Amino acid sequence: MSDPFRSAAEDTHAEMMQATYDALRKHGYSELTIQRIGDEFPKSKSLIYQHYDGKDELLVAFLEFMLEHFESEFEAEPPHDARERLRETVDRLLPAAMSDEQDAFVRALTALRGQAPHDEAFRRRFTETDPVFVSHIADIVRKGVAEGTFRGADPERVAQFVVTTCQGAALRHSTTDGELDLATTRSELDEYLRVRLGTEILGE
Amino acid sequence: MSDPFRSAAEDTHAEMMQATYDALRKHGYSELTIQRIGDEFPKSKSLIYQHYDGKDELLVAFLEFMLEHFESEFEAEPPHDARERLRETVDRLLPAAMSDEQDAFVRALTALRGQAPHDEAFRRRFTETDPVFVSHIADIVRKGVAEGTFRGADPERVAQFVVTTCQGAALRHSTTDGELDLATTRSELDEYLRVRLGTEILGE
Repeated sequence: MSDPFRSAAEDTHAEMMQATYDALRKHGYSELTIQRIGDEFPKSKSLIYQHYDGKDELLVAFLEFMLEHFESEFEAEPPHDARERLRETVDRLLPAAMSDEQDAFVRALTALRGQAPHDEAFRRRFTETDPVFVSHIADIVRKGVAEGTFRGADPERVAQFVVTTCQGAALRHSTTDGELDLATTRSELDEYLRVRLGTEILGE
Repeated sequence: MSDPFRSAAEDTHAEMMQATYDALRKHGYSELTIQRIGDEFPKSKSLIYQHYDGKDELLVAFLEFMLEHFESEFEAEPPHDARERLRETVDRLLPAAMSDEQDAFVRALTALRGQAPHDEAFRRRFTETDPVFVSHIADIVRKGVAEGTFRGADPERVAQFVVTTCQGAALRHSTTDGELDLATTRSELDEYLRVRLGTEILGE
């Protein structure tokens, strides 16, 4: 994925989001304070206090910022064929191996997910986020069926299952010490896709 | 599942674990304090302070307590055939619909998972927990292949994938407002199992 922060580095809002992300990666959710977010922010800390009442407000804004980034990335996707587009999307959600940067991102996201069961603002945000990924994948499946690349399948069911599996893998990866092999998970997911769509997606 | 707390209601440790669970369900992780756990505990609060230094220590002990409960449940399983045993296990991990009690449990667990990316004690606990479920399922698959109920399959890969999918579903269920249909997830997982094991597991 492209760097959501770099693209608008001059923008104060993007800088605040970058600071939020950097602080979240360093400290995790529990130890995060608005002060620590301020420490990562290159401009005056008072700008943060002017805009946000506390860390939760900033984190919810951060999730919204990330969602907008993903949406714009999806819109900008080149017109590959459906098989290629689906592979690219799964690569993004469930890479076979994660860079330190991806690893840090997934950990940060899991920490925020962990707030959602008992905090409505976070839950509302994820209730909006998941369908963006689901409908993006469902859309690819639908087009793949229409163009004859995939055999008939229920696009919504397939998309939901792919998102669920990828999120399960991200959760296990970020909450255990190397307990899950991501490449194996992908190849099992590929077996599911082969049955549902009549073609392998993630294999060579 | 049987009630892990009731079975040893007279036991102070079990009562502490019950109090931890009740407080976690009510307040979530962030708002949880050892004081609030004490409020749920029927005996003297000082007993808690004697045993645990803070809420995190109590919560890590709680995870250990739950793990022991699951292990003893797995050991006590009746000698059904492999298909029946696998269905029972998936029913436990991914019920088609959740009672309020199951719902509260899954939410509490997600909140604790959310601590693991940035807290080693929690991460160590989940690194121990996941393999218990994986090896239980792998064991069922292995026996099912040996007895001819399932066709040849890699027990470990199938087990990992089932656990990943079930955890992804639990995560999405507990962090969104009804965004995921659990019954549909089960039927897609069943399709995967049908391909891997040569028989449906979760269908009628």
